[in-house]
This record gives sequence, C-alpha cells and structure tokens, in this order.
Amino acid sequence: MRQGSRSHLARAITLVESTRADDRALARRLLAALGPDRGTSVRVGISGTPGVGKSTFVQTLGLRLTGRGHRVGVLAVDPSSPRTGGSVLGDKTRMPLLAAEPSAFIRPSPTAGTLGGVTRATASAIRLVEAAGHDVVLVETVGVGQSETAVSGMVDTFLLLALARSGDRLQGIKKGVLEIADVLAVNKADGDHVAESRAAAADLAAALRLVQGGSGAVPPVLTCSALTGDGIDEVWAAVRAHRDRLGADGLRRRRADQQVALTWSLVRDELEHRLRRDPAVRSVREDVETAVRDGALDAAAAADRLLAAFSS
Amino acid sequence: MRQGSRSHLARAITLVESTRADDRALARRLLAALGPDRGTSVRVGISGTPGVGKSTFVQTLGLRLTGRGHRVGVLAVDPSSPRTGGSVLGDKTRMPLLAAEPSAFIRPSPTAGTLGGVTRATASAIRLVEAAGHDVVLVETVGVGQSETAVSGMVDTFLLLALARSGDRLQGIKKGVLEIADVLAVNKADGDHVAESRAAAADLAAALRLVQGGSGAVPPVLTCSALTGDGIDEVWAAVRAHRDRLGADGLRRRRADQQVALTWSLVRDELEHRLRRDPAVRSVREDVETAVRDGALDAAAAADRLLAAFSS
Repeated sequence: MRQGSRSHLARAITLVESTRADDRALARRLLAALGPDRGTSVRVGISGTPGVGKSTFVQTLGLRLTGRGHRVGVLAVDPSSPRTGGSVLGDKTRMPLLAAEPSAFIRPSPTAGTLGGVTRATASAIRLVEAAGHDVVLVETVGVGQSETAVSGMVDTFLLLALARSGDRLQGIKKGVLEIADVLAVNKADGDHVAESRAAAADLAAALRLVQGGSGAVPPVLTCSALTGDGIDEVWAAVRAHRDRLGADGLRRRRADQQVALTWSLVRDELEHRLRRDPAVRSVREDVETAVRDGALDAAAAADRLLAAFSS
Repeated sequence: MRQGSRSHLARAITLVESTRADDRALARRLLAALGPDRGTSVRVGISGTPGVGKSTFVQTLGLRLTGRGHRVGVLAVDPSSPRTGGSVLGDKTRMPLLAAEPSAFIRPSPTAGTLGGVTRATASAIRLVEAAGHDVVLVETVGVGQSETAVSGMVDTFLLLALARSGDRLQGIKKGVLEIADVLAVNKADGDHVAESRAAAADLAAALRLVQGGSGAVPPVLTCSALTGDGIDEVWAAVRAHRDRLGADGLRRRRADQQVALTWSLVRDELEHRLRRDPAVRSVREDVETAVRDGALDAAAAADRLLAAFSS
C-alpha cells in the first residue's frame, strides 16, 4: 500500500469499513502500524447540496493538483448512499477524468448505514489514503443531516459550495452549515451567471460579517466555475491560506482535538447503537414512544424506562 | 400546587431537579399524575448573549402578559450557572417587578451541572409550571454551548434577541443559533439607537433571505426596546403568529416529536454520563486520550478500548 498500489489501498479501506469483529482487530493492527500522523497532508471537506456542481468541482480541482505533482485522494461521506446502484457518492463515473489519473484515488462513501459507522470508516480511510502517499485528501459530503458536522470534525478546512441562480437567494446553503464553513465559493459563475454570482458572493460576505458579531474570522466568499476552471486556483489558495493561518502547532492541536472528540463521538454512537439493538429495549421501545407521544409518559420517565430495559 | 401555591410549585421543581433515586421515583409519580399535555400553553424560548437585555425583556414582556390576565412562568437553562451566588440566571433580583407580580413565577436555572441534567429538569419543570396554571412559559437561556438547541427542543417558538451597536455588525448572534430562531428581535432600539437598530434588522432580514436557499419560512426580524416597551407587543404578536401557523395539529405533533427526541437525548446523556463515571473507564481514559493526541492510537481503536473498559 505504501508503494502506492491502488488495489492494496482499496482493500485496506474495505477492511476499516468492515464491522466484523475479526476485521476490526486486523484494522486496528493496520492503523497502529501506520504510526503517528505527521500533519503534512492537506485535509479538505467539500460540501454543497446536489446541483451545486460538487463532482465537477472536485474533478477540476483534483486535476489541477495532480497536474502540479500532488497525489490526491477523494473520499465521500454519504450515510444515505444505497448499497448498490450507480448513484453512490464518489462513484468514479462522476469524475471520469480524475479517476483515469494515476496519482488520484477515488473512493465512494462506505455504506455502513449509520453516520457513526460512516464517520468511523472515513476517519480511518483518511489515514490510509495519506499513508499510501496522497498529500491532499478531499472529503466530499452531500450534506445529509449531520454529515457536514462529522466531516468538519476530520478535516483542516471546510469548503462550502453554493449557487446563485434565483436572484436574491443562494442555493446550496442549508441550515447549520454556514457556521462550519471556513471558505465559501459560489460555483457555476460562468456565462450569463458571472455577474449574479459575484453579486451573490458579495451579499453573502456582507451577511456573514453582519451576523458574526465581531467574534472570529469571517470566512472568505469567492466565485468560481468548475466547468471553465475560472477561480479554482483562487479557491484553493483560500483553502491553503485558512490552513496556513492555523500554523504547524495550531494544525497539530486541531487534529489532536479532533481525534479526541471523534473518539468520544464514536463511543457515544456505539453505545446508542447497542441500546437500540438491545432485545429488551426493542421490546418496550414502541410502547414507550407511543406513551410519550400521547403524553401518558414524561420524557424523563420514558428515558429511565428505556435505560432500565437496557441494563436488565 | 394546582391551587397556584408558589411554594408547592417550587418544591415540586426541586424534586424533579433532584438526582437522588428516591426523589426520581417520586418525581415520576408526580409527573404521571399531571396527565397528558393539553397543548393549551404557549412555550417560548428566549436567547441572546449577555448584554442584549434579556432580563429586562423578560420582565417587560412578562408584566404586559400578566397585565392582560396571563399567568407567566419563567424558567432558565444555564448549565454554567454556579451553585451559589447572586449571578444565577433567572435570579429574581434581575426581574424585581415581575418577581413581585403574584401571577408570575420565576425559577433560576437548575445547577445539575451537565446540560443533560439541566435539560431533563427543565423539561419536567415546564409541565409543572403549566400544571400550576401558568398559560405562558418563557424559557430563558444565556446560550452557553448547546443550551439553545436544548431549549429549542422544548418550546413552541424560539426568540433570539440581538443588539445593534457597532455599525455593521450585530451583537448577540452566536454561531449556530440563527438557524433555530423562529423570531428575531433587535433589542435596545431606543434613544439614539432607533435608526441603527432598524437598519441592522433590515440587513439581518435580507441576510436571512439570502442564505435560506428558498426552503422554509424566513423568520421575521423586528426591533424593540425592553426599556421603553416600544415594539414589545409586536414581538409577542410575531411569536404568537409563529405558533398559530403550526395549527393545533401541528403543535401537537411538534410537541410529541420533541418529547420523543428528548427521551432519546436523555438516554444518550445518561449512557455517556455512566461511561465517564465508570471506574474502569476513568482508569484508562487519560492514557487513551494521550495516545490519541500523540497519534499513537487511532480514534476507532481508542473508542473500542474505552468501550471494552466500560463493558468489562
């Protein structure tokens, strides 16, 4: 894998995605053998709702970076991705040119079902992709539920793509995602849409200044076109500038904090998973939820009942 | 308590705040005796960072409502509140006029320490305050960490107070809170500050329209002065309008969903609490976290180790 074999890397990722006990033990040994993270890679989260041109953006950016000698790994986090079918996020058919590039590695989202499972697998996959010599890791998420928050917890910089098409509104910005964006880019700023994209970016920048109450840096808002390539270098420069501002120590601290937070989040996910899977809990769950809905049972009492079933 | 005795209500709330096993059993019986929520009360969350004038706002609004024949309960959620001292949120000294009003009931934040504990106690306190005949419940939170999210999960409408004082920036809006606000009000719009408050409110309304990507209602942004009373009625009308838009069925569904979500969140909190308190976990926790920080241990492997300690 360290020699850059794609198929070995793919198999290693399949191993860390597995939920089988023996695979997990093997995955632990493999990850331990990688040694500590040296903090030299660039980890970038990329989000935006369907239609903002995420795949094209990742491909255009990825090709620029490989063209400059970088080795680029693309991972995806999409807990809603189906187990079969061609629509799986990260599917190579979405990025045919990048997929054909020898120094790029593209991996679809694991289909472990729960966000916790996908998070766990992706966090390990990042380490594996880096160990295989990729110095840039792009983690793409379609933004279902909490997946952006999960991704922002494993990257250095979080890039949000948006779209200006409807006059006074921006598309692609969901509730809760603005606050985790380190860099924003209004994509598809090409053809007839350059002017409105620039206006939307300026308005968004003003809006962010307004609501960020004087605390913390206001993320830059750029325009780009993944189709023509305009502005892509500037977006990458803004991503690098955000990461560089952290400094070597800041980056090390951020990644260490992320890993500790990730650890506890995996613990919480697993505990809840065990609880929901527990036969005694499952046997009372429906009755308890119905009683809570009907107001016959207080939430605190309902929680106690579920916990009692779990412990018994 | 049903006869409106303040001291009985206060004692009942103390009971639901208690973490003692026998108190909990008694609290469960008490809450069960209240019967189902009839959905007739108005539950409003009120947030805003220190300095936006939250206490004055609650007092001014509370006095208007009691003046119109409402009985108003004021609860507070502040997981950071000290166990002693006069700065406890909800302290009656912050709202002396409202505290002196016989049809108002003011209760400081429970000091249960964890947000989960405070959430649990407050959710039960809402029911008790309503059972004691209060038809309006104002749940105030200072906005430490996740407390706004917790409060938004137990009220019908969430009101965010902000402040315009620094030209092009609004004060009092923290990351993550904008997306849960149903109504926003720029407070202290009085004296020399009327014009800039109105301008800030208009800018904020435009910013919200911009970033809310066409999906869902954009919350109204008003101005008011809790000091002079200007605009307070309009803010209350906006709160009522938001709640009325839910409709009787919508409100019932929303509250039922909230209680089920609250139940599982209390379960998760308690599981994590047990885990962190567990002697075997505590004995390995520091070593595990250090190893994760140093990169010697992968987050997934670290989570497995903590879970193994817990289960052993």
